[in-house]
Amino acid sequence: MPVGTYGAVKAMSPDELNALGVTMILANTYHLFLRPGHELIGELGGLHGFMGWDHGILTDSGGFQIFSLNEYARISDDGVDFASHLDGERFHFRPEDAVAVQQSLGSDVMMVLDHLIPSTSDREATRDAVRRTLDWAARCHTAWTDRSADLWGIVQGGLFTELREMCAKELVQMDFPGYAIGGLAVGESTEDLYRMTGVSADVLPEDRPRYLMGVGLPENLVECVARGVDLFDCVVPTRNARNGLLFTRRGKFVIKQARHRSDPRPPDPDCDCYLCRNFSRAYLRHLYMTGEILASRLATIHNIHFFMTLMCDIREAIETDTFDGFRNEFHRAYSGDCPVNC
Amino acid sequence: MPVGTYGAVKAMSPDELNALGVTMILANTYHLFLRPGHELIGELGGLHGFMGWDHGILTDSGGFQIFSLNEYARISDDGVDFASHLDGERFHFRPEDAVAVQQSLGSDVMMVLDHLIPSTSDREATRDAVRRTLDWAARCHTAWTDRSADLWGIVQGGLFTELREMCAKELVQMDFPGYAIGGLAVGESTEDLYRMTGVSADVLPEDRPRYLMGVGLPENLVECVARGVDLFDCVVPTRNARNGLLFTRRGKFVIKQARHRSDPRPPDPDCDCYLCRNFSRAYLRHLYMTGEILASRLATIHNIHFFMTLMCDIREAIETDTFDGFRNEFHRAYSGDCPVNC
Repeated sequence: MPVGTYGAVKAMSPDELNALGVTMILANTYHLFLRPGHELIGELGGLHGFMGWDHGILTDSGGFQIFSLNEYARISDDGVDFASHLDGERFHFRPEDAVAVQQSLGSDVMMVLDHLIPSTSDREATRDAVRRTLDWAARCHTAWTDRSADLWGIVQGGLFTELREMCAKELVQMDFPGYAIGGLAVGESTEDLYRMTGVSADVLPEDRPRYLMGVGLPENLVECVARGVDLFDCVVPTRNARNGLLFTRRGKFVIKQARHRSDPRPPDPDCDCYLCRNFSRAYLRHLYMTGEILASRLATIHNIHFFMTLMCDIREAIETDTFDGFRNEFHRAYSGDCPVNC
Repeated sequence: MPVGTYGAVKAMSPDELNALGVTMILANTYHLFLRPGHELIGELGGLHGFMGWDHGILTDSGGFQIFSLNEYARISDDGVDFASHLDGERFHFRPEDAVAVQQSLGSDVMMVLDHLIPSTSDREATRDAVRRTLDWAARCHTAWTDRSADLWGIVQGGLFTELREMCAKELVQMDFPGYAIGGLAVGESTEDLYRMTGVSADVLPEDRPRYLMGVGLPENLVECVARGVDLFDCVVPTRNARNGLLFTRRGKFVIKQARHRSDPRPPDPDCDCYLCRNFSRAYLRHLYMTGEILASRLATIHNIHFFMTLMCDIREAIETDTFDGFRNEFHRAYSGDCPVNC
């Protein structure tokens, strides 16, 4: 599971990520394009050199942030016009630019530029966005001349089964080395998320990675793996950590709760991360309540360890053909809505 | 050089401090007394257990923060009345309480409660504060029944030579295992700081540690060692790091300066800390400008490494009887007022 970043995995050093077994991170092309700029990063050895990161780097195309951070982004068949959310500078960004920028960044896995629309869009608007997404995917594929890095296609289609299927089929025709499922985890119901993930993954070839973008919570990972997904990215582990929420196999652990005030136990007694091996609930709560950076760091280490271990256990269950049992046992133990009461 | 803390050395983990060779940290009694409370910390194994810190802990008496954070602290011969800066709760804090609270915290080196006054105070007010400081030192000494931890006296006396000398002599009569020089680095000139440090240190026995509280900048350390000081504490390394200022032997390095924007060199080419071994000026500046926690962490590691190395080199120069040369060479190379231009 890549851990997202635009210049650093928040609160973490490369050494710590290595120690946690992280082998791929996600970098946000839009943010790095604006600041410090992909040319500069290219001159400084790409993101691997710039960040001091020796392992895999997956980059998004920039499209998601262009659409989500720019109220007035203007789409044409040629590309997208947007203004920097930092200083208002205007840019015209074409599918070919997305590939070129990601190449400058030194990405290992690049993404095609896609046209993201709200999941509440009607069939007509969604069909139009799928058509443009496919057109852009083809142009990105053509621009993808340096094959030392991967370029993956992205399935769009909103909440419409036949548009998702059509989009996935056309992408597979173009023959990408991997495929992402996009346009989900943007406000739709969990039921719709699971349904559209399944519909999309069913069309994608089993011998290519299937990557669900922007997902998710632990229960989402288990359920979406069940529907065929191999790879995820999300802010959930790191952002929640900084906001004082730890994940455990028994559910969520809210650091600031008063009942942890004098509790000498580790946050998660079943966990062997640096936090849980060395510090008490009382100490972590004290760090959090006093705004210490170390609270964010320890909680981030714990949550990344949790997600890495969860994905590792899922892989092992699949390899030993025990995934159904793992899935049932996971849901039995994990109470997603309630804080841990132990 | 102890690195100050009230529950964590800001941005650092105990593992990192160990790796940097830190063998003593300073904990602020006032902050910990208010939150999470010394009783709780006592129940959870003292600060060593609470923070996961196996090495030395020096605690201040709480007096400095009581006076500096409480505009309306009321002094009597018995003790000091103050209101929590967090919630206004009122406390009466006597010298005996200072010892008891520090014992609960599990301090290795405790400080007597002293009466701190502005360095601009007149002779009469300063004499009165010295008298009270000596009275309180004697009461702390009497309350110091568990000798498993040290208790050190504190020299006050403002900017008056004869009051400093008198205070130091009386403290030496009481026979403490170590002595601090207090009431300096509170706004007086550097000349006054050096003069009063020398005056105080001259009276203190050479076979006991002499500790200058709240100092200081690299040049202050070199000059005050020359005047007999063995030990310092200060926020300078860590707070400046979070504000984007690195120390080098050639002077100060200001991270945010535009000229570092595309500079591939390490922040300090002569340094072998984790930051300077692995990351460029351009990357550190990017982290700083985007507000990444990692900027604070890397800068803090560098500055602690710088101060640890400086003190280590000073010790070595003293042992090899080359301190005068070291001192001259340090000042020649170090331009304290100007950013590094290299």
